[in-house]
Amino acid sequence: MATSQESQPAWGKFIGVGVGPGDPELITIKAQRVLQQVPVLCVPKSREEGDSYVLSFVSHLIDLERQALIELVFPMTKDRARLEEHWSAALVKVVAHLREGQDVAFVTEGDPFIYSTFMHIYALVRARYPEAPVEVIPGISSINAAAAAAGLPLVDGAERLAVLPATYEGERLEEVLRQFDTIVLLKVNRVFERVLASLSKLGLAERAVYVKRCGSPEQEIVRDIGELRGQELDYLSLIIVRK
Amino acid sequence: MATSQESQPAWGKFIGVGVGPGDPELITIKAQRVLQQVPVLCVPKSREEGDSYVLSFVSHLIDLERQALIELVFPMTKDRARLEEHWSAALVKVVAHLREGQDVAFVTEGDPFIYSTFMHIYALVRARYPEAPVEVIPGISSINAAAAAAGLPLVDGAERLAVLPATYEGERLEEVLRQFDTIVLLKVNRVFERVLASLSKLGLAERAVYVKRCGSPEQEIVRDIGELRGQELDYLSLIIVRK
Repeated sequence: MATSQESQPAWGKFIGVGVGPGDPELITIKAQRVLQQVPVLCVPKSREEGDSYVLSFVSHLIDLERQALIELVFPMTKDRARLEEHWSAALVKVVAHLREGQDVAFVTEGDPFIYSTFMHIYALVRARYPEAPVEVIPGISSINAAAAAAGLPLVDGAERLAVLPATYEGERLEEVLRQFDTIVLLKVNRVFERVLASLSKLGLAERAVYVKRCGSPEQEIVRDIGELRGQELDYLSLIIVRK
Repeated sequence: MATSQESQPAWGKFIGVGVGPGDPELITIKAQRVLQQVPVLCVPKSREEGDSYVLSFVSHLIDLERQALIELVFPMTKDRARLEEHWSAALVKVVAHLREGQDVAFVTEGDPFIYSTFMHIYALVRARYPEAPVEVIPGISSINAAAAAAGLPLVDGAERLAVLPATYEGERLEEVLRQFDTIVLLKVNRVFERVLASLSKLGLAERAVYVKRCGSPEQEIVRDIGELRGQELDYLSLIIVRK
């Protein structure tokens, strides 16, 4: 069996590494250690010719003379078939290293299990290569970071928190706004006018705070969200409604 | 005016420091730096004669020869008047240092803005001493840590997440369980049998995972939650329901 073990090394570990919202100090000791140690890192980016946003805030931790970097392209599209092609292509690249016994860290903004591309590759690795060990290192999500930056407590005592994409139609969104104590609306950029209308209708516009690219140098906090009307908003922005 | 400035130093900063769920590696670089630098630390504990749980996982970072440690007692009670007495007593101790120009770090498990005692002292400082600068350093919450440890993605795409104490009565709890894609139930220990009944009724018991003291050496993950029936459960435990 020794021969077979020699020709077939143990699988490397696939590690999802949450690196927080963008402030290089809001990364955990564990994520920092893993990023410095792993032989292979992969980072997502939205266009072949573009740069990876998440790479920009961990590049000081990695050493490309010693570590391999794989840039994985995941276009910003809702076309499921096209996304699946990209997920499959990413899977092939990741698995090639895992199979050779190399640990692969997939770097994700925020937390790996909150609206990340990592989740799809993770699901594929688990389903198709159950022999590969996996690990997920949680990160500071943009939700916790935005609340902290804005000085807005999220939930206390018997309160309830809802987190959802703001892209829901009026009625479904308003139902949640009515029922919960604190509501975090993600992906607000394309539907802002509609969200503002719902908030105003429920008398909640004044209880809402807009946070853009929390933790990064471009961070912006807007407490009078009416000011944002007609502006082009960043896709990395969210609204916290605290009753 | 120089004399007045000398006799009245600038206020110290009140800093809420989230230190994550208990794994000493799941603390951020920023929290670590602040804990090592501040002259005054305060930690909550539930009984005068007891030890602070959160202190046990940051004690390797602090130096009591150089830093002052204030232990603040917050009893586990729902008696609001009694709690308020303790919050006021804590406020007095914190403010005494802030007024002397000393920064005070209030150490909290998980994230400072998710079900923490810190939130109450923070609200009091802001309301009564608006001249005191405040800052909140987000931490890895038990929600993100538990999902990562259990390998359970939280939300993706158009999905919705609800976070609530499990202490709600059947109907209100079941409404949320029906409407959301992922539901995190905190404070499950005292109402577990009732929660299990609701989950079973909705056919969700098999989609539920129980996580105890995530990230600490006592961490436990139970995927067949029926096994927990009749057991005494830890108060630092939660259930993630992922449809």
